[in-house]
Amino acid sequence: MDTARELHAPLTDDELRRLDAYWRAANYLTVGQIYLLDNPLLREPLTVDHVKPRLLGHWGTSPGLNLLYAHLNRVIVNRDLSAIFVTGPGHGGPALVANTWLEGTYSDRYHSVERDEAGMAKLFRQFSFPGGIPSHVAPEVPGSIHEGGELGYALSHAYGAAFDNPDLLVACVIGDGEAETGPLAGSWLSNVFLNPARDGAVLPILHLNGYKIANPTVLDRIPTDDLLAMMRGFGHEPYVVEGDDPARVHQVLAATLDRAVDEITAIQRRARSGETVTRPRWPMIILRTPKGWTGPDVVDGKQVQGTYRAHQVPLSGIRDNPEHLAALERWLRSYRPEELFDATGAPVAELAALPPTGDRRMSANPVTNGGQVLRDLVLPDFRKYAVDVPEPGAAGIGATGALGPWIRDVITANPQTFRLFGPDEVASNRLGAAFEVTDRAFVARTGPDDDHLSADGRVMEVLSEHLCQGWLEGYLLTGRHGVFTSYEAFIHIVDSMVNQHAKWLKVTRGIPWRQPVASLNYLLSSHVWRQDHNGFSHQDPGFIDHVVNKKAEVVRVYLPPDANTLLSTMDHCLRSRHYINVVVAGKQPAPNWLTMDEAVAHCRRGLGIWDWASTDEGSEPDVVLGCAGDVPTLETLAAADLLRRHLPDLKVRVVNVVDLMRLQPPSEHPHGLPDSEFDTIFTRDKPIVFAYHGYPWLVHRLTYRRANHDNLHVRGYKEEGTTTTPFDMVMLNDLDRFHLVIDVIDRVPGLAARAAHLRQLMVDARQECRDHTRRFGEDSPRVVEWRWIRETDPSTANEGQAS
Amino acid sequence: MDTARELHAPLTDDELRRLDAYWRAANYLTVGQIYLLDNPLLREPLTVDHVKPRLLGHWGTSPGLNLLYAHLNRVIVNRDLSAIFVTGPGHGGPALVANTWLEGTYSDRYHSVERDEAGMAKLFRQFSFPGGIPSHVAPEVPGSIHEGGELGYALSHAYGAAFDNPDLLVACVIGDGEAETGPLAGSWLSNVFLNPARDGAVLPILHLNGYKIANPTVLDRIPTDDLLAMMRGFGHEPYVVEGDDPARVHQVLAATLDRAVDEITAIQRRARSGETVTRPRWPMIILRTPKGWTGPDVVDGKQVQGTYRAHQVPLSGIRDNPEHLAALERWLRSYRPEELFDATGAPVAELAALPPTGDRRMSANPVTNGGQVLRDLVLPDFRKYAVDVPEPGAAGIGATGALGPWIRDVITANPQTFRLFGPDEVASNRLGAAFEVTDRAFVARTGPDDDHLSADGRVMEVLSEHLCQGWLEGYLLTGRHGVFTSYEAFIHIVDSMVNQHAKWLKVTRGIPWRQPVASLNYLLSSHVWRQDHNGFSHQDPGFIDHVVNKKAEVVRVYLPPDANTLLSTMDHCLRSRHYINVVVAGKQPAPNWLTMDEAVAHCRRGLGIWDWASTDEGSEPDVVLGCAGDVPTLETLAAADLLRRHLPDLKVRVVNVVDLMRLQPPSEHPHGLPDSEFDTIFTRDKPIVFAYHGYPWLVHRLTYRRANHDNLHVRGYKEEGTTTTPFDMVMLNDLDRFHLVIDVIDRVPGLAARAAHLRQLMVDARQECRDHTRRFGEDSPRVVEWRWIRETDPSTANEGQAS
Repeated sequence: MDTARELHAPLTDDELRRLDAYWRAANYLTVGQIYLLDNPLLREPLTVDHVKPRLLGHWGTSPGLNLLYAHLNRVIVNRDLSAIFVTGPGHGGPALVANTWLEGTYSDRYHSVERDEAGMAKLFRQFSFPGGIPSHVAPEVPGSIHEGGELGYALSHAYGAAFDNPDLLVACVIGDGEAETGPLAGSWLSNVFLNPARDGAVLPILHLNGYKIANPTVLDRIPTDDLLAMMRGFGHEPYVVEGDDPARVHQVLAATLDRAVDEITAIQRRARSGETVTRPRWPMIILRTPKGWTGPDVVDGKQVQGTYRAHQVPLSGIRDNPEHLAALERWLRSYRPEELFDATGAPVAELAALPPTGDRRMSANPVTNGGQVLRDLVLPDFRKYAVDVPEPGAAGIGATGALGPWIRDVITANPQTFRLFGPDEVASNRLGAAFEVTDRAFVARTGPDDDHLSADGRVMEVLSEHLCQGWLEGYLLTGRHGVFTSYEAFIHIVDSMVNQHAKWLKVTRGIPWRQPVASLNYLLSSHVWRQDHNGFSHQDPGFIDHVVNKKAEVVRVYLPPDANTLLSTMDHCLRSRHYINVVVAGKQPAPNWLTMDEAVAHCRRGLGIWDWASTDEGSEPDVVLGCAGDVPTLETLAAADLLRRHLPDLKVRVVNVVDLMRLQPPSEHPHGLPDSEFDTIFTRDKPIVFAYHGYPWLVHRLTYRRANHDNLHVRGYKEEGTTTTPFDMVMLNDLDRFHLVIDVIDRVPGLAARAAHLRQLMVDARQECRDHTRRFGEDSPRVVEWRWIRETDPSTANEGQAS
Repeated sequence: MDTARELHAPLTDDELRRLDAYWRAANYLTVGQIYLLDNPLLREPLTVDHVKPRLLGHWGTSPGLNLLYAHLNRVIVNRDLSAIFVTGPGHGGPALVANTWLEGTYSDRYHSVERDEAGMAKLFRQFSFPGGIPSHVAPEVPGSIHEGGELGYALSHAYGAAFDNPDLLVACVIGDGEAETGPLAGSWLSNVFLNPARDGAVLPILHLNGYKIANPTVLDRIPTDDLLAMMRGFGHEPYVVEGDDPARVHQVLAATLDRAVDEITAIQRRARSGETVTRPRWPMIILRTPKGWTGPDVVDGKQVQGTYRAHQVPLSGIRDNPEHLAALERWLRSYRPEELFDATGAPVAELAALPPTGDRRMSANPVTNGGQVLRDLVLPDFRKYAVDVPEPGAAGIGATGALGPWIRDVITANPQTFRLFGPDEVASNRLGAAFEVTDRAFVARTGPDDDHLSADGRVMEVLSEHLCQGWLEGYLLTGRHGVFTSYEAFIHIVDSMVNQHAKWLKVTRGIPWRQPVASLNYLLSSHVWRQDHNGFSHQDPGFIDHVVNKKAEVVRVYLPPDANTLLSTMDHCLRSRHYINVVVAGKQPAPNWLTMDEAVAHCRRGLGIWDWASTDEGSEPDVVLGCAGDVPTLETLAAADLLRRHLPDLKVRVVNVVDLMRLQPPSEHPHGLPDSEFDTIFTRDKPIVFAYHGYPWLVHRLTYRRANHDNLHVRGYKEEGTTTTPFDMVMLNDLDRFHLVIDVIDRVPGLAARAAHLRQLMVDARQECRDHTRRFGEDSPRVVEWRWIRETDPSTANEGQAS
């Protein structure tokens, strides 16, 4: 076993002393943030009044983070590296804040927190304090692209940052708690998708401090040989740095980091010299040091250091227990602050000279403020990719298939700043045109039957929504662009990650120095209505409901009804900043409704009356047929056509919604339609039969304050599905054209009696369709999509049968 | 390297021949399901009319599943094992259906699908056919506890099934696609939590067929040595079975299964003889065979077998391409059906005699129909755990803390059928009383500073919500009980798993032979209002919104306002069947409102007027204050008190909601309150100011059809949070007592003028609280919870300051 223990000691005594002093300074500042309201330099004896009334923060992980940060600084300076620090254990917020203050970035970003005594007092006071800063490595922390509040995503974020950043080293600390999560466990094999010639490097550092909140960690308690085998299995060369003697750990860690960076450089050099490199064995580090190292050892007779008791605040009884107060003072003074800070409270010159400067500081690396390095995409004119729509209802290949060539050319035009992400579904979602110009990224063995696989591929496919999401987030937060395409149902797998990203976007809107990043774009295809072949488990439109709970200013939802509207929508999304855009579009052959000019105008409005499908001719209609989503739009238009031919004097208005947020009042969402316009379109008192792509109550939720809400009747997915045909799916949920006609008959005052015959026709048509499907295993030809008008008319069919 | 290749060949020629025939029969039945409408035994030459119009299904994984199933049958028969089969690649539905039909269980469950020619025709026709059965290993498949539609959970389900089933062997097939997912990757270390003395065994079988939908799999393309190292790192002894020569693979697989079961038995024997066993090295199998093995090799000049092209339907042009039709017939006949089925269409006697019989059939193992083996929990009388509430507002230790002793005694009373699951948060969520009688399960190295850790523990703690959820689902689906306690925000991590479980519950309600299982109970504490210390990333009440999208008949949501209502609620939940119960309750010290008798009555009603807090004295009120959730209830009661003292003639009615679904109409949810009762309680025309625990629009969604909805004004979490104090959290979201009073003043007609002074008092009180918090870092003592009445009155405070 070739561990770092056998390496030499690279630090001179003086280097060791200074490095240790730097570490002590960071630890001191960490403890200060957790505890102190005042007396930051301990010029006076510590009293209860100097201590915060509520003690909030996490000490346990912090000394390890401080150690790593200090040592990485050394390597950066020695080699003039561009590096960033991803903090998996994000609860170690005070450690990162301490380091950014020590290297000056904190004061650069927050001028009132200078590197002096007053600034230090402010630094301490503001931490986890009302009106101050969060306890985690939140967006407020310079250099952070990862809050770490919800554990599991550190390593995928790190890889996302490294992609297409060839000169970047991403040091990623993974807590041994986080390592137990599924998303993190699934992230190790990201190295199969990282191209050493084109991408930067990730150095995973597994911080084994042994305990979580109340439990030991699993990876600390399995045999070390197993852990090393696991890491080798993940394709890494693991190096163990272990101990509780600072001087010794400093030496071993320094040597190990040198070696790791040497190996990384060697791999990159080989790959960049043209050598074919398949899955190089990247180094990784296992740092095994005590939890809460250098903190209180035993408190109230119980072992604290090295146990779960060091997780948060080791001494919590300061106010009531003089011994705790004394222990806190001893602990703080053990770092010898008088050696670390000068009379003004600034770090002594020797320490101030240690970290890198300017953009080389990990906390100031431009990529960590992605909006700052973000460049607009070069976007080919989407109008040139228009599908021809000679008349509404013209047959099409499907919306995503029409989008594919544009996506292809986006990839070509942006060879280093755009990637497409998907869980093995890019081709399935009919975006295969991308493979005319690029491949799927893959840096392991390939074979003759593989389809478009290479180290240079710009399509990121792995069967893990978590990885796709984490990579893309890391890629966006470091100033690039991307699209995530997934089956609609399974995007719920990343619900919680979306939450966290939405929170990041919300918070950063209020941080002046954070520049807006590119939007996170979801293109959800294989949606609920066309998972007829895979069945119930693949049918769920609830992701929209999930995202609309997030802050209105960061969320956009689009349901383009056809190909040209999808092209216009995606162009808009890829130009937008700092949003989460959810686009749901079909991949199956489907009719198109709008020419490109019409589509652009429709998308600009977000919703609108489709005159060509309506029979109200500008007057007040008898009924409004609303629709959102491709399949509901098709059914609505078919219903409108049935009504036109069977009840020619009924004034029907068809309204299509592409931007779902237009339904909300403007007070609730920036895209909200003013009430007056809403009332003009949807009327104030006529029945509205609304066919919606997802769960129907969402439309109610968005419109309950509208004047005409009481007359709104919504059809949508009501959790009825199985393996069946597409039309049977809409029938199971009463969203089909025939049922929409019935809904109209039942809701327009006075119509029930007059249209009793038509109503029965509709009931019979449903039965006939169901019978046909049960008998032949396919939809009645009369309802197959692009034959949507004449052939769906049951009366015509009856005539046909009669002849 | 000690792989199975070096083992001997245990099968006699005759055994080998019969095993292979059985495999061929299963493969034949699989292909038949995917393709055939008729001519099931190929008595006639195959024509287009015999073939389904839509070809749906997944062939690629199926031959591997059939192989494993047949071989496991052999081991079961030889050793009289109790075993079940968890199908990770659930898209291989036809394979599992084929096997259950071969062994007779399918006909036992579905009498119209007998083991004869007509039954076989029906079996083929119904597969992935409208009105038939789903394409996946859905609940309709006998023996399934895992649909496999959404990949990632096979192994956690398998472990959940094995816990407390000491005599059970759970064979768990993991597809190499699924192995890329985070949840699956995080499941391998489940073996650290399995006690060989008490629990059954899991035999993971990684099926490396090399390809997913369009991509190779990662685990297939990394070096085999890495893969073996990884599995050893996970604590397993891996055995490789590899090849494409059936005879050879049969021998090696048989030998390997024998060896694996021998090792499992040896581990169990040692552990059960009293020997202390820490983390035994359990066997696992890597099966490396071609995707779509035995299917078409080359189609249209392209390699299909052994590639991604075999994933779904290898020959898809049957209708239009005579070569495809011919190839299909050759493929079907290659299994020599005439040797496999007799003249009646039944499996020939030799094959029928091969599988186990009765309950030993994996598809008939009683644990796979969990409701069948489910026994009621022995529940201690929760009333005996009542907290004393001498008057409303009496100080309490917090709801979950009061629940702890009851949970503890539930554990004691049900030593083999109940477990508590949590991501390292059981103690944090104040359920630590459990550790008075049990430990956390842990089967690896332990140390002196560990807290209640042992192999016998009945608390399952791992820092993975995915594992907790998967284990619990497996445990419940095999007939046991449990509670999952988690931080509220992070339960979103398992959103998609909850979806799938809810779908399972929905579908099984319609399957007569499936008995109801115990409910999946969530106890969410550390909720949105009390994550003030951890900050924004830890604040999210949206899980409730997520679950209410599921079918009403399987979802229940409870928001007990205090300790006694929580006790009553949890007792109800643990008695319930086949639901998903979401209970949100606080863990912090908090006031209690109801005596146990009152709590029981209140929970039985689900919502009700709190007369003692109201001033309407049975008459029509001027305003209704609704509340749901512990913190909103506290703020509402404080607001009611302020109103009582400042506007004594205002008739205020306080309504508390514990069962959220009561708000819906009965047409939407079985718990829905009839409109007449709703109107009686909430009035038909008076303003309602509703303080809700979560996102406010959910209350609108639930009530939009109620008569008085237009007068409903809801306060809740509007995504405003950070690290601050508890009261500042409610102020940030305008849910605080002072703002509720302002809401009342602004909404009761005519009150604005009369109460202008009080309104200003409230505005000032908010500012004063904010100032206090910003200055001192803690809430004003006047708003700290259990001093909720007198001290919150700003006018009193002003008087105090004046004196």
